[in-house]
Amino acid sequence: MLLSSRLAFSRLVRRGAPDFSTSALRAASNRAIVYTKNGDPASVLTALTHPQLSSPSPSTLNIKFLLAPINPADINVVEGVYPAKPQLTSSLTQSGLGSADTPVYVGGNEGLAEVTEVGSGVDGLKKGDWVIMTRPQAGTWSSSKNVSPRELLKVPRELDGFKLDEVSGATITVNPATAYNMIHDFTTLQEGDWLVQNGANSAVGQAVIQIAAAKGIKTLNFVRNRDNFSELKEQLTHLGATTVLTYDELADKSLRGKVKEWTDGKGIRLGLNCVGGKDTTLMTQLLGQDGHLVTYGAMSKQPLSLPTPMFIFKNLQAHGFWQSRWYQQRGPAEQEELMKKLVQFMSKGQLSPPEHEIVTIAGRESDEVATQKVRDIMSKLAAGRFGKKVLLRMEEVSSD
Amino acid sequence: MLLSSRLAFSRLVRRGAPDFSTSALRAASNRAIVYTKNGDPASVLTALTHPQLSSPSPSTLNIKFLLAPINPADINVVEGVYPAKPQLTSSLTQSGLGSADTPVYVGGNEGLAEVTEVGSGVDGLKKGDWVIMTRPQAGTWSSSKNVSPRELLKVPRELDGFKLDEVSGATITVNPATAYNMIHDFTTLQEGDWLVQNGANSAVGQAVIQIAAAKGIKTLNFVRNRDNFSELKEQLTHLGATTVLTYDELADKSLRGKVKEWTDGKGIRLGLNCVGGKDTTLMTQLLGQDGHLVTYGAMSKQPLSLPTPMFIFKNLQAHGFWQSRWYQQRGPAEQEELMKKLVQFMSKGQLSPPEHEIVTIAGRESDEVATQKVRDIMSKLAAGRFGKKVLLRMEEVSSD
Repeated sequence: MLLSSRLAFSRLVRRGAPDFSTSALRAASNRAIVYTKNGDPASVLTALTHPQLSSPSPSTLNIKFLLAPINPADINVVEGVYPAKPQLTSSLTQSGLGSADTPVYVGGNEGLAEVTEVGSGVDGLKKGDWVIMTRPQAGTWSSSKNVSPRELLKVPRELDGFKLDEVSGATITVNPATAYNMIHDFTTLQEGDWLVQNGANSAVGQAVIQIAAAKGIKTLNFVRNRDNFSELKEQLTHLGATTVLTYDELADKSLRGKVKEWTDGKGIRLGLNCVGGKDTTLMTQLLGQDGHLVTYGAMSKQPLSLPTPMFIFKNLQAHGFWQSRWYQQRGPAEQEELMKKLVQFMSKGQLSPPEHEIVTIAGRESDEVATQKVRDIMSKLAAGRFGKKVLLRMEEVSSD
Repeated sequence: MLLSSRLAFSRLVRRGAPDFSTSALRAASNRAIVYTKNGDPASVLTALTHPQLSSPSPSTLNIKFLLAPINPADINVVEGVYPAKPQLTSSLTQSGLGSADTPVYVGGNEGLAEVTEVGSGVDGLKKGDWVIMTRPQAGTWSSSKNVSPRELLKVPRELDGFKLDEVSGATITVNPATAYNMIHDFTTLQEGDWLVQNGANSAVGQAVIQIAAAKGIKTLNFVRNRDNFSELKEQLTHLGATTVLTYDELADKSLRGKVKEWTDGKGIRLGLNCVGGKDTTLMTQLLGQDGHLVTYGAMSKQPLSLPTPMFIFKNLQAHGFWQSRWYQQRGPAEQEELMKKLVQFMSKGQLSPPEHEIVTIAGRESDEVATQKVRDIMSKLAAGRFGKKVLLRMEEVSSD
């Protein structure tokens, strides 16, 4: 396997773009995690070494990925059960996998990259800048990529003396952005106001707790009951959660009275839902007049069941939130403003990176070894054997 | 019974306000349909004759009701199962029922009245003007009433040579207003765009069909299957419905393809729901990207069950609509504009009054007879034995 991979690789080198051989001495090759058909990620994903990038054509730039998370939605994309699909890529190689003969999907939606070379006519970005991809499903499980400035967004490497760390940068695009926008886009909460959320220990949930706390917004947080509930409660409280309860406690009717008391009779106007099903119905009933329920996930795989009087008489509004849509709909100014806001929270210690584990696909590993490594991660993720965010570090493939 | 009523009435006359006896020769007494406790309307409603109104105090005016509908929600109010409750009235009589001793609720939310006397300091209204009540649960099942101009709204008696009829005026406040606002308040539909609704043969549903047709908006209408479906379909088509289908046809998966075809792939952006339950889930799935589902009723008494991907990925927004809230939130200018718009549709023959039956509570009938008449109507309504809108005409009580 290792041998055949090396042969395949040398073939790729020989068939590379003309400039590849000329730069072979200084430059390594690239690698991407690709697939040709949807299915179980532990079966369909393959590491594909492909030639070094050419210098960027006008109005494009080359970037090198530093870290890219494997998010739950990424797995759904590979499975083919997610509404957003990556485009087929046929330009990785001259022939075979990744060429026009056998185009591939490159995995990964989120990731932090560094600008390595800027083509003519690109404004506002220079070598060494950090960027994230705002175009959905851009294929971030890659070592390097030639991109258009329209599909990415600069992230401040440094703000007021604070140096952004790679993990925070690599996980800023989706979860903290989702949390920030859900808190701000549907209703105006003042200091002292409340929001309620379920799945409060999810990555988004934890970002919600922290951003709300930074703004003086109180949070009522629901999580599944579990053996280590008191430990989780302590952890979320440490992040800034005002109250942490289990779904079991939602069924307790006295809770509504307590919520009324906590909110000085004003009621809660924002509910964030990534669960669905019966518990979400009960949570929604904790909302007061003119409440907004924002759904961004469906962990229970159950539909939302909402009593009609809440809509008619309490003026409930139910929305959905999808950060990919947000990037598509907002202009660069708003996108940059969002990044600045999030890095500001980070710079003040108000928004910490998720618990994580970095998996490095080393440059000296063969595609076979890399493929097996990625598939093993996927099996472990499917079995729920990571309790934390997994990030890929895809090194350039050593050519010597 | 008749005798005791007359005795009661003569007692009321003797105990009337001081000015009552002085105006007895020219003026009749009033009557209202009242209740002291919630319950079955066929048991708790009572006709109560009470003295003639005094001349209006400054900043108030006297109005005489011409016609007031008995809407389904009115019955829920009497039963005590509706979120809006009328205020207790203790000023109808000096003692006994309707006095401070035994205050009463006066039934009725909607109705057309004529201004009979204007107090000092009231601008913009004169004797003979037609008005409707915008304050919810104002007690429209009355012959006359002293009111504040803030709780009512002038309706044009005549517009561009068109004379508004009493039935249209008496039923303009709720149903056509609900239809108009639901079509306009949540998204912008252009000529040729579609909306979809269930309960399409309801009073609101018929107004939706007519207003949409007048604006060139196409309607996909769902109704329950029934023996006379083709007759109903013809009737709704005559009103302007583009397509009329039964809920059974919602289950047919080919419908989505047809909708796509009908809408040139654009999808439907507005759904109006007064049913709830499974059929509403299926109807909502006919909405395209960025759709709005507006719920204004719950005839099935089932909650709304909505798939979360519709919220997250199709950007569905679910709202409720309650015309009472609309009146509370909008200023007089917007309210007057609404009335003008609705009367304009009527003047062009684009919005017809509902099928109806007028029940007159005659001035010479005793309170006992009137009470029995009203209770009989309520029994018939509860049994579904009116197929049309019932309107009360409460005559002044003859005093000779």
